[in-house]
Amino acid sequence: MSETDWIYLNGEFLPASEARISPFDRGFLFAQSVYEVTSVYAGKLIDLEPHMERLDRSLSGVEIAAPDIDLAAIQKELVARNQLQEGLVYVQVTAGEHGPRDFYGPETLTPSIFMFASHRKLIGDVARDGLTAISQEDTRWKRRDYKTTQLVSQSLAYRAARRAGATTAILHEDGMITEAASANLWIVTRDGDLVTRQLSSALLPGITRARVQALLGNIDVHERAFSLDELRAAREAFTSSTGAMIAPLLAMDGHLIGDGVPGPITRKVQAAYYAFIGADLGAIDWL
Amino acid sequence: MSETDWIYLNGEFLPASEARISPFDRGFLFAQSVYEVTSVYAGKLIDLEPHMERLDRSLSGVEIAAPDIDLAAIQKELVARNQLQEGLVYVQVTAGEHGPRDFYGPETLTPSIFMFASHRKLIGDVARDGLTAISQEDTRWKRRDYKTTQLVSQSLAYRAARRAGATTAILHEDGMITEAASANLWIVTRDGDLVTRQLSSALLPGITRARVQALLGNIDVHERAFSLDELRAAREAFTSSTGAMIAPLLAMDGHLIGDGVPGPITRKVQAAYYAFIGADLGAIDWL
Repeated sequence: MSETDWIYLNGEFLPASEARISPFDRGFLFAQSVYEVTSVYAGKLIDLEPHMERLDRSLSGVEIAAPDIDLAAIQKELVARNQLQEGLVYVQVTAGEHGPRDFYGPETLTPSIFMFASHRKLIGDVARDGLTAISQEDTRWKRRDYKTTQLVSQSLAYRAARRAGATTAILHEDGMITEAASANLWIVTRDGDLVTRQLSSALLPGITRARVQALLGNIDVHERAFSLDELRAAREAFTSSTGAMIAPLLAMDGHLIGDGVPGPITRKVQAAYYAFIGADLGAIDWL
Repeated sequence: MSETDWIYLNGEFLPASEARISPFDRGFLFAQSVYEVTSVYAGKLIDLEPHMERLDRSLSGVEIAAPDIDLAAIQKELVARNQLQEGLVYVQVTAGEHGPRDFYGPETLTPSIFMFASHRKLIGDVARDGLTAISQEDTRWKRRDYKTTQLVSQSLAYRAARRAGATTAILHEDGMITEAASANLWIVTRDGDLVTRQLSSALLPGITRARVQALLGNIDVHERAFSLDELRAAREAFTSSTGAMIAPLLAMDGHLIGDGVPGPITRKVQAAYYAFIGADLGAIDWL
């Protein structure tokens, strides 16, 4: 992943190296701050509308007023200025700077807005070869349905995974899986059921998750909580997220899931998603 | 509370208005960032050493290397430059800026360091007249013993309190109190026992809490979990924190605690703490 040259900050397009905010910003002092990451394929922002709806919901959840500007238009402008064909656009909105450090803040908070873009191959090695994971206790705050920048748990989980020679972490509470470190998790059970956890404050309502559900149409999705044991016993598992889209999960804590290779349902979901974003399926030789 | 003129940022003393960091700092993107607030009375930093020990523990908990500089000396310099007699010194250490946004970050993170000071009366109206509170579910992450800047729960709790006409919030999980929104909580039970919750990952190990324990000497402190009901039925309650030191808690959710006035044990603890910081007890006419 490499950052592009132009970023957007509080009304201005600037070179990334010149971006500066005040450390008195409430995003820095209190993490009172939410974000979205939207993928770009063939120069087009994917599912931008639901991402912006989720941003509004997160803003409301942490009591930041929705910015009175067209965030979608600025993201499109950022894609154009950076000639971004494939990658990600990041948008962060904080409660802004309001003088002294004060837990309350003013009744109405005026946001700070920061955006940048990254070049990144979205259908790459991870999609083809899959991920490995460790299991890790989910230590996040209780409102994971708001996408805040309170991301220490996830960062520590990824770091622990790397030290264990794995790629990501499967987060759980008392053995019940919430999601992966920054992706929703899906399994195909021994009985062939496709399962992902039902939405609640315990996990992020993934935009890719919702899109997969819409695309599957004739395949039933069982929305329910499932355990680490059930994942270990599954035929297949995969994650859904903006950055890695659909990624096969091959092993957890050194234990192979199914045969330890990407399974047929995973490949079917990948094909459906790649078709949705307009990829040329014929050019993906491993699919 | 008003900020002082000079702040410290990554090696430099600067006017507060000139302080700027990169929004690519991991403190801003991931809240991978910890802090301490130390009180200053008569120009002297109070309990600076345990604050710095707790900072080291928090840094280690979120995998930031301890800064290779004398943080205590810089705080003293900040007090001197700002001619601070009474107030607070804030220190925040983040995982720093490391190019692209990446949950993992480099194996060894090089910190960013930000400090500022505030003028503030520490023995004031709140100490004399007390606080009122609402009860609020504790939605924080599971490692509250690390003092990170993941402070959305606390900020929302304070905002909810203000809307309800109260000053602060008492945080609880399933009716068992963890602490106040940014302070430890103490009660004097109907039987006359002085109770505060035992330390664990569920609450912050308060420096003022530890100091009060040390000062009480001949009064037994019962360290155990207690419920909202027990608080409602208590004879007295007070909070301990750096900013408000010892503050009487008079009511919760509109229900008076004891007689709804600061109690004798609370006043005794205040007197012991104010004597410890070197205040002239004779000049505090309400004590």
